[in-house]
Amino acid sequence: MEVEVKFRVDFSAMKDKIESLGAVFVREELQEDVYFSLPLPKLLRVRKLENLGKAFLTYKEIRDLGRNEEFDELEIEVSDFEATVEILKRLGFREDVIVRKRRLVYRLNGVTLELNDVEGLGGFLDVEVISDDVEEAKKKIWEVAKLLGLSEEDVEPRLYQELIREALRKSEEE
Amino acid sequence: MEVEVKFRVDFSAMKDKIESLGAVFVREELQEDVYFSLPLPKLLRVRKLENLGKAFLTYKEIRDLGRNEEFDELEIEVSDFEATVEILKRLGFREDVIVRKRRLVYRLNGVTLELNDVEGLGGFLDVEVISDDVEEAKKKIWEVAKLLGLSEEDVEPRLYQELIREALRKSEEE
Repeated sequence: MEVEVKFRVDFSAMKDKIESLGAVFVREELQEDVYFSLPLPKLLRVRKLENLGKAFLTYKEIRDLGRNEEFDELEIEVSDFEATVEILKRLGFREDVIVRKRRLVYRLNGVTLELNDVEGLGGFLDVEVISDDVEEAKKKIWEVAKLLGLSEEDVEPRLYQELIREALRKSEEE
Repeated sequence: MEVEVKFRVDFSAMKDKIESLGAVFVREELQEDVYFSLPLPKLLRVRKLENLGKAFLTYKEIRDLGRNEEFDELEIEVSDFEATVEILKRLGFREDVIVRKRRLVYRLNGVTLELNDVEGLGGFLDVEVISDDVEEAKKKIWEVAKLLGLSEEDVEPRLYQELIREALRKSEEE
């Protein structure tokens, strides 16, 4: 199980904060995510890591719909981003939105920190633990979140897919 | 476009024949193919190459339904056979049949020869050319087929998926 809490943050300030706490830098990812239209709680995504020349197909089921912090995840690496998107389209799935972000990945005190600069949305920090013990995972996540000066008020429960969809709707209304 | 003609053959005799003509041996594959239920002309398959530690997701559309010699093919390599099958099931696809075969791949005169020993079905030779010029591809295929002593009478137009399904139906009736 993937347990993850998402916070709205200022990218640069949070980067300094994370690094000042001695987090281990893991890698940088330039991501392009194609999300397909599936009824919630199901999510289907093809991700391209532009800077690493890799691509992944990911299927998730949200276990706590609305709060969106607990996910059953199945992920495979695929050899060809475009061909994977095309296969899914031919199978009848409709492309929903594209999410682009620059991500810095760190490790700190047993949790993974994913600091994101999301195109059109701004800065977010995903604090993640892979564990089937959700309670223990959330404890670890919140210990680190507090170290980083984050609180419940900073939590963003909506999915990136939803946030981008809302942003697109707003820009169309204007 | 994948252009391919399938012949019923005796595996050992055809192996000798192919090798006596000086075909270049490319590789051996021990395949396990999971086919999903999709309405024709669409085919969806996850293939494991047991001996090579590789797996592939393949989507095909048959262009000459019934004859089954011309295919639009999209294929990607995937990092995990079981996870790929599981993702497709979670997306609502139903497993249809499993096809297992030992395949010897050769190249001869610009065509690919796939000599198969299919579990429960016996020997088959797929003669294949990748080309958008179907007429030219079939000419090449039949030149090689004739060298191998094969004729129209040896052609098996049914898909492996169909042949296995029929074999399973028969064994259930008995």
